[in-house]
Amino acid sequence: MAAFSTPFASAAAQEEGTVLAPRFGTDGLVTAVVTDATSGGLLMVAHMDRQALDLTLSTGIAHYFSRSRQTLWKKGETSGALQTVRELRVDCDQDALWLKVEVSKPEETCHTHRDTCFYRRVEMSGDGRTLVIEPSA
Amino acid sequence: MAAFSTPFASAAAQEEGTVLAPRFGTDGLVTAVVTDATSGGLLMVAHMDRQALDLTLSTGIAHYFSRSRQTLWKKGETSGALQTVRELRVDCDQDALWLKVEVSKPEETCHTHRDTCFYRRVEMSGDGRTLVIEPSA
Repeated sequence: MAAFSTPFASAAAQEEGTVLAPRFGTDGLVTAVVTDATSGGLLMVAHMDRQALDLTLSTGIAHYFSRSRQTLWKKGETSGALQTVRELRVDCDQDALWLKVEVSKPEETCHTHRDTCFYRRVEMSGDGRTLVIEPSA
Repeated sequence: MAAFSTPFASAAAQEEGTVLAPRFGTDGLVTAVVTDATSGGLLMVAHMDRQALDLTLSTGIAHYFSRSRQTLWKKGETSGALQTVRELRVDCDQDALWLKVEVSKPEETCHTHRDTCFYRRVEMSGDGRTLVIEPSA
């Protein structure tokens, strides 16, 4: 298991340094943006606590923290849509992660049985409230 | 200004319906994932409150809520890196938005003067703590 550092001494260390030290929020979580390593499309947005990040790093398989169930969530354990992490990035202030993944059963990425959670587009030319379901992202 | 609905009567309405009704958190915010409309690369992760979303929809220019400053944030107002929204999507449970944008001054997208906030990759083969700065995402 990786051990993470305590908060940074300076903004420069946080932003330009080469030590991963995620800034978990008061809820203990960081945001994880998940894209398809091949197509680049956005698959889902999830959250990680320290344990989920440790397990992701040690196994190469994406683990998250389920806010609704308040528990560790190995994505795809039930559905088969396991995510193998091809690349992991962190943002400037280290409160968001970006996972580029390969999904073993893409059509089960979303619990609505789709290959992305972002299957609805907002019709911006209208009243700003109307959604259009798109076949893919 | 768009007026948004109250929470859904059912999961089906939330997930399969055609009415945008974001589920703002207890902090009044939803997560906004921002990608480049042309390259598809991840630029940043930000947050929106209702006012920021309303302004984004009515102007076509991305507005966020700055958590550090606790105020409305018209991205690029100072730096020039304004984001014109080419497409807006919402996820299955309507607590995350995806903006595909065109940036008027890409090299100022990140406050560190880079074209993305995700300029560091985690070296996963090592101790899981080492970051490598990459020229682009």
